[in-house]
Amino acid sequence: MATLPNSIPEKTIERLSEYRRTLLASHKQGITHIFSHVLAGIHGITAVQVRRDLMLIGFSSDTKKGYDVQVLIDYISRILDSPSSMNIAVIGMGHLGQAITKYFNGKGLKLKITAAFDVDPEKVGKQIDGIPCYHMDNFEQIVEDKEISIVIVSSPTKVAPTLVLPIINAGIKGVLNFTSTPLNFPQGIIVENYDITTLLEKVAYFVKESEENSNT
Amino acid sequence: MATLPNSIPEKTIERLSEYRRTLLASHKQGITHIFSHVLAGIHGITAVQVRRDLMLIGFSSDTKKGYDVQVLIDYISRILDSPSSMNIAVIGMGHLGQAITKYFNGKGLKLKITAAFDVDPEKVGKQIDGIPCYHMDNFEQIVEDKEISIVIVSSPTKVAPTLVLPIINAGIKGVLNFTSTPLNFPQGIIVENYDITTLLEKVAYFVKESEENSNT
Repeated sequence: MATLPNSIPEKTIERLSEYRRTLLASHKQGITHIFSHVLAGIHGITAVQVRRDLMLIGFSSDTKKGYDVQVLIDYISRILDSPSSMNIAVIGMGHLGQAITKYFNGKGLKLKITAAFDVDPEKVGKQIDGIPCYHMDNFEQIVEDKEISIVIVSSPTKVAPTLVLPIINAGIKGVLNFTSTPLNFPQGIIVENYDITTLLEKVAYFVKESEENSNT
Repeated sequence: MATLPNSIPEKTIERLSEYRRTLLASHKQGITHIFSHVLAGIHGITAVQVRRDLMLIGFSSDTKKGYDVQVLIDYISRILDSPSSMNIAVIGMGHLGQAITKYFNGKGLKLKITAAFDVDPEKVGKQIDGIPCYHMDNFEQIVEDKEISIVIVSSPTKVAPTLVLPIINAGIKGVLNFTSTPLNFPQGIIVENYDITTLLEKVAYFVKESEENSNT
């Protein structure tokens, strides 16, 4: 994904999202303060990395008790979240689409899945986990009506390339693509291609490497 | 994820996995040769990056027709794949677990999902998409019997921390964790924590940034 000049690095954005999730869980458990090395330990990174990430967004804390959890949550949220909530649609309500929708439902996130699209007559016109499922033929109209700015592509891989034009025409701003076909969009549309196979092949590679190293 | 000294960088491994997928799809379409800039274009990166990645694994090609697709597939496979196939288990057969299993089934990958685990009596003892589903109580035994080396954690987030000890005790070598709780393992176990929320929050952040930039 191309990042803009002067923007915060992608990897820092990922970690901020992860820190916030940990902070929210800690807050729920009644924890009010957390040290950088504790946050680092939970995420398997160094305390230096945590402090560097927070410095990048201008957050500093010199309390002896560590970071104030609530203050840090609010601070990260001001960086990550849009002032208005962003509406998201899922294209493809198979197992993966349903898993994602279910996962987000009731999480109380700023990001909301407000529509789903499919072509299966068994799904179109129904509510799936509380989300209305529309026919892909009505994509542009629904995107406009529901002010959707981001789509998650969880369709069959074969179908993915045929979705590029409708996504462009509907004025979508960001795409998270989980199919096996990388999708390319014109500049101005943010796209993240993420095939789960890659993650698994990566883990398998490092397992193999670690076994080879321990055998020598 | 900690990488070993002298090993190929994580990001290169990810891209090799992605290149191979594209090459396999090209091969299926009867394409025999591909230029680095074409491969780069498909993946939204530069030709320099593609050539650098392939140089890192010692692959060079100076044919005027571009890379030989079949030769490059074989070359990447020798880097990524273990000589023997690796067996994988999925822990948690909700929508996400089922999506992953279905996705891998019939893909003809070296990586094979050969077992699933759950605690739901509706699932335990049944075949789901051709994969036998066992009770989590029998985890260690089944892992040994079926020579499983990698697990995918797609359980409810709450349950994830309770899986750490069984995973360690069973001698699992690699973990791909999709829950919202990062899991920590002793050195020697490769772990990749990947919460889908992070990907979505990242896309949303860059959409917001790009909107702010175009408004100024």
